[in-house]
Amino acid sequence: MLELDYTNILDTAVGAAHGIPKIAFEKMDSSSKHLIADLETARAAGNLGFADVPFDDETTLAVARFAKDRAFPAVLVIGIGGSALGPAALDAALGRPNSGKRLVVLDNIDPDFVRDTLDTLVPEDTIVNVIAKSGVTAETMSTFGVVHRWMTGALGGRAKEHFAVTTDPEKGDLLQIARQEKYPVFAIPPNVGGRFSVLTPVGTLPAALLGLNVHELMEGAKRAAIQSQKPFLENPAMAAAFIQFVLERDRQKKMLVLFPYSQALWKFAFWFKQLWGESLGKKVDRRGRDVYYGQTPTAALGVTDQHSQLQLFIEGPNDKSFLLWAVREFRDPVSIEHAFATFDSMAYLQNKTMAELFQAERQATEIALTEASRPNATVWMDRINEDSMGELFMFSQYLTAYAGELYDINAFDQPGVEYGKKLTFALMGRDGFSEYNRKIDDIRKRDRAVIK
Amino acid sequence: MLELDYTNILDTAVGAAHGIPKIAFEKMDSSSKHLIADLETARAAGNLGFADVPFDDETTLAVARFAKDRAFPAVLVIGIGGSALGPAALDAALGRPNSGKRLVVLDNIDPDFVRDTLDTLVPEDTIVNVIAKSGVTAETMSTFGVVHRWMTGALGGRAKEHFAVTTDPEKGDLLQIARQEKYPVFAIPPNVGGRFSVLTPVGTLPAALLGLNVHELMEGAKRAAIQSQKPFLENPAMAAAFIQFVLERDRQKKMLVLFPYSQALWKFAFWFKQLWGESLGKKVDRRGRDVYYGQTPTAALGVTDQHSQLQLFIEGPNDKSFLLWAVREFRDPVSIEHAFATFDSMAYLQNKTMAELFQAERQATEIALTEASRPNATVWMDRINEDSMGELFMFSQYLTAYAGELYDINAFDQPGVEYGKKLTFALMGRDGFSEYNRKIDDIRKRDRAVIK
Repeated sequence: MLELDYTNILDTAVGAAHGIPKIAFEKMDSSSKHLIADLETARAAGNLGFADVPFDDETTLAVARFAKDRAFPAVLVIGIGGSALGPAALDAALGRPNSGKRLVVLDNIDPDFVRDTLDTLVPEDTIVNVIAKSGVTAETMSTFGVVHRWMTGALGGRAKEHFAVTTDPEKGDLLQIARQEKYPVFAIPPNVGGRFSVLTPVGTLPAALLGLNVHELMEGAKRAAIQSQKPFLENPAMAAAFIQFVLERDRQKKMLVLFPYSQALWKFAFWFKQLWGESLGKKVDRRGRDVYYGQTPTAALGVTDQHSQLQLFIEGPNDKSFLLWAVREFRDPVSIEHAFATFDSMAYLQNKTMAELFQAERQATEIALTEASRPNATVWMDRINEDSMGELFMFSQYLTAYAGELYDINAFDQPGVEYGKKLTFALMGRDGFSEYNRKIDDIRKRDRAVIK
Repeated sequence: MLELDYTNILDTAVGAAHGIPKIAFEKMDSSSKHLIADLETARAAGNLGFADVPFDDETTLAVARFAKDRAFPAVLVIGIGGSALGPAALDAALGRPNSGKRLVVLDNIDPDFVRDTLDTLVPEDTIVNVIAKSGVTAETMSTFGVVHRWMTGALGGRAKEHFAVTTDPEKGDLLQIARQEKYPVFAIPPNVGGRFSVLTPVGTLPAALLGLNVHELMEGAKRAAIQSQKPFLENPAMAAAFIQFVLERDRQKKMLVLFPYSQALWKFAFWFKQLWGESLGKKVDRRGRDVYYGQTPTAALGVTDQHSQLQLFIEGPNDKSFLLWAVREFRDPVSIEHAFATFDSMAYLQNKTMAELFQAERQATEIALTEASRPNATVWMDRINEDSMGELFMFSQYLTAYAGELYDINAFDQPGVEYGKKLTFALMGRDGFSEYNRKIDDIRKRDRAVIK
């Protein structure tokens, strides 16, 4: 069971200037009732699509059945943003190097990256999962074009058997192409946005193709969904949202450091980074006022970044809130038995385990942050498996949705990136975007300031 | 040749509230003379070790000669922080998947990560490079203990031939162990700190073992070192430092977004994140005043993070400065020729290249950031190769050193992480750290606040 330890968020731990008094949590227990009710109303009306996803047993079963017959050693995902970060996070947490299966994600159009990535793949051994909610994403469609040619060039007519598409069930070019080419199609529910789609076939199809147990993933997600509708003091997602909201707004913690103490959760941190940044980074609130909200998420890895970012976290400006993820049990604690016990720097490690050292360093960092008055909370998991990852994803999604309620913004759109997409189309000469070329021409005429 | 384009830092591009007037650069040209002279004085006195590293041709030659005879397909680096991020950045930028060589970096002590990583390696085919400046780093020494046992268990007495050590030339347990075991030893000059060590054998030995040309790496680094001693308006490193200093201090850009438009530079961004965060994140300045300085670096990848972080960058608080890295030429532009030209979302891509789309998106992002008054500068490189990477590393190191001068702090220490190390030793029962156990016991007695 996931737990939220917020001891080091309290003013008793980090002082009144940086912490939250315990009484604020008790007050929130009563004043939060309407927020929990509002979110449940939104869900019942079909406006909180992600929350219902794990309860769709039929889709989970269809995904698992489909994957069972596909014995491809390489799973190539073509997608970007939510269509890449979810599958990558699942693989990093649950994939094993010697499973005989590997995930490769083409989530960038850097041409050298595309070329190098294809050079590591054998068409015959690869299943390609093209993922795009809209079915028109420039990066995904161009990469699909290149990969389709690569696959067809190698396998001819048999190439068809190496593609599966995940997209909107009703619209978009990718859906039409899949129908034309007779590719299997998996649906992203129309009321689920990209960054909230990890538990739809966006995440579950690659996971199942890698041999992971998607039923257990959904069990954990269901549990977290149910827990996230409970009253405040039994609801870690709501409590975590409240903490970040207060720290950002009233304690000037303008950054949220996502700090997993688990290598398995490193890519999960990048998934969360999109979830938090894109959901809460908003110019206008629901009343239409200009607010320019958004706590900036940044990722740090325990213990690795103790030797990179921790100096800044401890001695730099006290402008960050820390969210640690900790795991109680590892698959193998790894004994440290060595031949160098006569050396001071190795003697104390003899007959200990890597797990002990890892946990000691996590605890030391927690204490050091707290002593430096840096507010930090820890999300605890017993272990990393399908069940706990499903729980963690759903917890994170509810946490973000609750934060959206507290800020009173729309957590489910991303209007700020449309302008750049239109400029790209204009630059690429796509029909219908010529008005943007005037702006581009103006900019090209400007003198550049360059030092070389 | 590396170029700094700061057009979109100027007030004429992003407005007076967020930009810098051109006249400030002209003023700085005269007022910066003493800073450039001060840094050169420090260098001449041996206090700017990193600047001299590429001119040590003898070491470069020794590294290249050593690597020439070691035909191991896998290079395993054991190191953390500066001893891992440099080699990883070099490999990500310059390694090729089909070169027959691969780099594996054990830079975390998560036991499952250590176990999984060793499961991907064959002792016979692996050379282990243990890297630690101090020669006593807990993570590196414990991992070395585990890997030494793993290698010895497989190869017995022949295991010796599979280790090389990079450490301080005069002190530390790792040096003593290397002498006892008769491992080859490569020196990190005593006046070069971990995060400034990428051009010492810390980076060059793994690079050479991967088959990269370390002589060319040094040629680029030499050029940047010379350029970084020139007057302000011919000195991109000094100009970039000035820009970040003014934006952070006077324009409240408390975060620096490291934004490479090149997949090859993604791990370079993490190397830079340590360099910037650990060098400038300081509680006290050189006069001993409490200042709590430090602009927080965070990494975003073009174009990938346009679908993750860009929404926040465009619509969120205007509290960030952006440093883009752009590359003019790719090895292969990758033609987009596809079979789906009847679909709107693919028609405009036909007979274009991935390189064109990539550059169009970079330019669109640059314009969108600028139109939203977000100050952004771009570091331009012609292409990614050993020479240009050497130049980029040295440019970045000088940029950071100049920023340290502007803030008047010591950019070369990291006092904030010592306390956590001592707590770890106490928790692990190491002799001589029992005084820290009282603090730990106090904390263990505290009530925990938990929601589950």
